[in-house]
Amino acid sequence: MPTVLIAGVGLIGGSLGLALRQRGLAQVLGHGRDPQRLRLAAAQGVIDEVVDDLSGAVARADVVLLGVPIGSMRAAMDLVAPALRADTLLLDVGSTKCSVLADARAVWGEAPANFVPAHPLAGSERSGFEHASATLFEDRAVVLTPVPETQPRAVERAREFWCAIGARVQVMTPDAHDRALAATSHLPHLAAYALAGSLGQRCDAAQLAALAAGSLRDGTRVALSDPALWRDIALANAGPLREALAAYRAALEQMDLALTAADGAALEAQFRAGQAARQALRIP
Amino acid sequence: MPTVLIAGVGLIGGSLGLALRQRGLAQVLGHGRDPQRLRLAAAQGVIDEVVDDLSGAVARADVVLLGVPIGSMRAAMDLVAPALRADTLLLDVGSTKCSVLADARAVWGEAPANFVPAHPLAGSERSGFEHASATLFEDRAVVLTPVPETQPRAVERAREFWCAIGARVQVMTPDAHDRALAATSHLPHLAAYALAGSLGQRCDAAQLAALAAGSLRDGTRVALSDPALWRDIALANAGPLREALAAYRAALEQMDLALTAADGAALEAQFRAGQAARQALRIP
Repeated sequence: MPTVLIAGVGLIGGSLGLALRQRGLAQVLGHGRDPQRLRLAAAQGVIDEVVDDLSGAVARADVVLLGVPIGSMRAAMDLVAPALRADTLLLDVGSTKCSVLADARAVWGEAPANFVPAHPLAGSERSGFEHASATLFEDRAVVLTPVPETQPRAVERAREFWCAIGARVQVMTPDAHDRALAATSHLPHLAAYALAGSLGQRCDAAQLAALAAGSLRDGTRVALSDPALWRDIALANAGPLREALAAYRAALEQMDLALTAADGAALEAQFRAGQAARQALRIP
Repeated sequence: MPTVLIAGVGLIGGSLGLALRQRGLAQVLGHGRDPQRLRLAAAQGVIDEVVDDLSGAVARADVVLLGVPIGSMRAAMDLVAPALRADTLLLDVGSTKCSVLADARAVWGEAPANFVPAHPLAGSERSGFEHASATLFEDRAVVLTPVPETQPRAVERAREFWCAIGARVQVMTPDAHDRALAATSHLPHLAAYALAGSLGQRCDAAQLAALAAGSLRDGTRVALSDPALWRDIALANAGPLREALAAYRAALEQMDLALTAADGAALEAQFRAGQAARQALRIP
């Protein structure tokens, strides 16, 4: 059975541990900032073993998975680099891929041949292995973003790794991934934080809780997410995110103009375009 | 058993019919634009009886409930006004209350003493009695917005009516309701339409469906709502909605500035304010 080292056992890393262990796919080692907390994860069956000696564990591992947030990626790579074997598959789960590749190139000079950047679209507003689930990746998209330096064999191993726990794997360039995810994930998070924040400043803010409709509940759900985590994602993907944000702000401005002019036809056309775009996403 | 006439048997009117009938609270008459479709509602137990003669049904009814959208409210009032008895309780379920009261004053000169404007916060992106549910109002807020012309006894009857089907009733002024709902419902709808619409115009729009994260799913869910219905709501509450929209656009602008300046501290503070405001809403 292969040995998988998860460096950073949070919601994603913890769910990976559970998924691998419950399917009997791997011996799972876990490393993290807080060994005391990690022992809880081991006691709950999320990982097999807590490792204190990271270098020793890296040297033992067939797969090293970096489960840390975007803002900690470079530091995690610095820690695993010295002991990483050439035949060990290196994976990450970061939400932005160009920044992760830049981190790798800063640490190794070029992206390691056995490093296959990955982004499982499986996050939620919750953090920590306490919310981990063995089924988190089932039927979820996982985007792999190999680069010219990446070995084709490593991409195949990464594909097998993610498919084995039920994910639907797709391959994209890091640029295309970051542009698309700016629209499908990073902008929705910004919008949710801004929507909730704009309500919090109102003089009738205290009254609003009793009047929160389903649209507000859903439109602000991810404002519950970890602000520091999302600060780092937003900064790491600032270019594509600002482009998506500009388009969004322009759409809101058009609606404001239509409202000001009491132009029902324009407003309805804007709403219909939004409805059609949402239907085209084919989300249930 | 009292007779309740529902004029406009959609998602809300249909759910009311189901709730009243399943609890054995009323004989439920239904009237609508499309009698053919309404016979299906009767066959499915949503209402007891389809009425073709609206005036006759209004004269028979102990409660007349206007279940039509905001844009059809004035026309519905014009139709029921001639036959309405002084002792019949008149209710509506419109999402904006100042506009409904303006409609009533246009039809009757002043708001009828037995008219108790109501807004059940129980809508969804779905329309039509096919999606009706007998439990839709259970533990949901219903806001009553009586005015000085309204009889206190009518308010009590309206409160009993809504409480009997499980709703939590609260009383507000029409102005306070419209200002609050601009923030908690109308703005989230606009934001969802704009977010989905801004994605639909991208050159990689076709790729986005496979990469839609949970944040996008939830942030755009209500963009599936009926555009004509929401056009009318937005226009009917344009003043408070534009104020809420201005605050939201300002929050997005601040985020854009922080992103441009790569100001992580400012961005994190904005995200934290959004998180705190969302937590203060105490929505699960």
